[in-house]
Amino acid sequence: MSAYYPSRQDIETAHERILPYIHRTPVLTNAYINQLTGCEVYFKAENFQKIGAFKARGGLNAALSIPKEKLGKGLCTHSSGNHAQAIAYAAKMLQVPAFIVMPSTANKVKVAAVRAYGAEVIFCEPNQKAREEMVQRVEKETGAYFIHPYNDIQVIEGQATAAKELLSAYPDLELLFVPVGGGGLLSGTCLSAKYFGKDVKVYAGEPEAVNDAWQSIQQDTIAPATGNPTIADGLTVSLGNLTYPIIKQEVSGILTVKEDEIRSAMKLVWERMKIVIEPSSAVPLAALLANTDLFRAKKIGIIISGGNVDLAAPLPFQAV
Amino acid sequence: MSAYYPSRQDIETAHERILPYIHRTPVLTNAYINQLTGCEVYFKAENFQKIGAFKARGGLNAALSIPKEKLGKGLCTHSSGNHAQAIAYAAKMLQVPAFIVMPSTANKVKVAAVRAYGAEVIFCEPNQKAREEMVQRVEKETGAYFIHPYNDIQVIEGQATAAKELLSAYPDLELLFVPVGGGGLLSGTCLSAKYFGKDVKVYAGEPEAVNDAWQSIQQDTIAPATGNPTIADGLTVSLGNLTYPIIKQEVSGILTVKEDEIRSAMKLVWERMKIVIEPSSAVPLAALLANTDLFRAKKIGIIISGGNVDLAAPLPFQAV
Repeated sequence: MSAYYPSRQDIETAHERILPYIHRTPVLTNAYINQLTGCEVYFKAENFQKIGAFKARGGLNAALSIPKEKLGKGLCTHSSGNHAQAIAYAAKMLQVPAFIVMPSTANKVKVAAVRAYGAEVIFCEPNQKAREEMVQRVEKETGAYFIHPYNDIQVIEGQATAAKELLSAYPDLELLFVPVGGGGLLSGTCLSAKYFGKDVKVYAGEPEAVNDAWQSIQQDTIAPATGNPTIADGLTVSLGNLTYPIIKQEVSGILTVKEDEIRSAMKLVWERMKIVIEPSSAVPLAALLANTDLFRAKKIGIIISGGNVDLAAPLPFQAV
Repeated sequence: MSAYYPSRQDIETAHERILPYIHRTPVLTNAYINQLTGCEVYFKAENFQKIGAFKARGGLNAALSIPKEKLGKGLCTHSSGNHAQAIAYAAKMLQVPAFIVMPSTANKVKVAAVRAYGAEVIFCEPNQKAREEMVQRVEKETGAYFIHPYNDIQVIEGQATAAKELLSAYPDLELLFVPVGGGGLLSGTCLSAKYFGKDVKVYAGEPEAVNDAWQSIQQDTIAPATGNPTIADGLTVSLGNLTYPIIKQEVSGILTVKEDEIRSAMKLVWERMKIVIEPSSAVPLAALLANTDLFRAKKIGIIISGGNVDLAAPLPFQAV
């Protein structure tokens, strides 16, 4: 599989394109977490991003790149949540309709948020095949333009802008940690590390239960989604043929973590940093905490991917 | 009861005194909450303060004002939580012992945090009389210097610095909203509004269940604590003879809110702003939401007092 690399200029253009619609999110630090990890950790708080997650970046860049004449029938996509909100938000900004295929298990807050942007939600079985089939049907029936949640060059360019902002604020970072699901954020982060960092290594955190990205690197071919459950519901999908080759080439390692490690890291962030993050966002910190020996005294950037949690339900780290 | 007013210079000196030990906390905004309230709301995020609450300011200012020769035996206080942590933190900074009287019902996270600063915790019955008696005993037995949680001029000056920072960042604010318990934050905020604001009105939010501050204004005398339960566990105490006269003179209104209104406002902040705030911190926003007609199109500063919540227990807004 040959890798297509968006250029430095492509990412800069993407950033300019989306800037009017996104927040320049803050970078947070925490003395206690620095002490625990023995590192200087800089958290890029994309939970404070529009729609509550970094996915606003990729969705907007893709939607804003579509020629006007192809936009009339609106946008469609499939997503367990945050990309769904991103496309619904982008469609609202562009004043076109949006049709969003979501798994029947998607969290209620995310479904409500998608509808609040005026999008139509179509439910499907909670597996990748069902999602893809349903979105094809929706595409055919509505004529809406399909924006893939991660396997899309414009989406990758958009996600890259989070690490670009982080590296522009903290040019001395030595490592970047992000979660990996479909690989949009990870491949974009690899590109920004290459173009905007000084010898920056990129690591991904992945739940052991859905370790298909780790498997993919081992086997040198895209492994299918495991289908296992995980509390990190944003990370259940497999890599794509656009994200995988970049990741294979650029990533320094994929570190898998147990569900309990994700729970603990999530609680640590809520308790000590006083911010609401979703389970997927705790995965990179969990990976760092489980491997502090490998990263002693490093300056590390972590992208907090999002903060969309169903607060009415028990939280993953609460005693039930 | 005559009012003693710390001067503008006193508050400036307090601010300089504590600056090396505190965070200059960010000011956050939220488009959805602006839409809901019809106002421009600026949240001073003291949940990101050292010890997770504004109380670090007053505790530090008081501790740092004590003459060195009186400090040898350490510090003591009584508090349901955040002032306890503030004094424990201040004692650690000054390298002296701390003895903290806490009600037996105090939340576990706060107790653990107090101990983590190296302080000794002494439990008492959960009422104001028991607290005061116990702290007198501790003072006598240990010789530690007592710092009252709110009825103390240096504490009031320290709490005033939160509004001072907010007004220096947003000089056009027309109103400030804070919670009221013992009145340290409220009286301090009144002083900063007077000295550093341009015709700024100050309102307090208070739980209906513990409406002694509201009663005090009505009756023109300090009403005792009601003793009723409230989820806003930081606001159960009554005003003091130093805080009350300033509040009586300066406050534009005390707005009481129901427990359900506090729950909803708390959930709104967690869900939309992605920050962890404690129930007491949601009281001013609840008061604004219940009275939007009175404050249409105003520029409002709200001090988010703290973020110390026991995350292992069910949250106040969760279905149990």
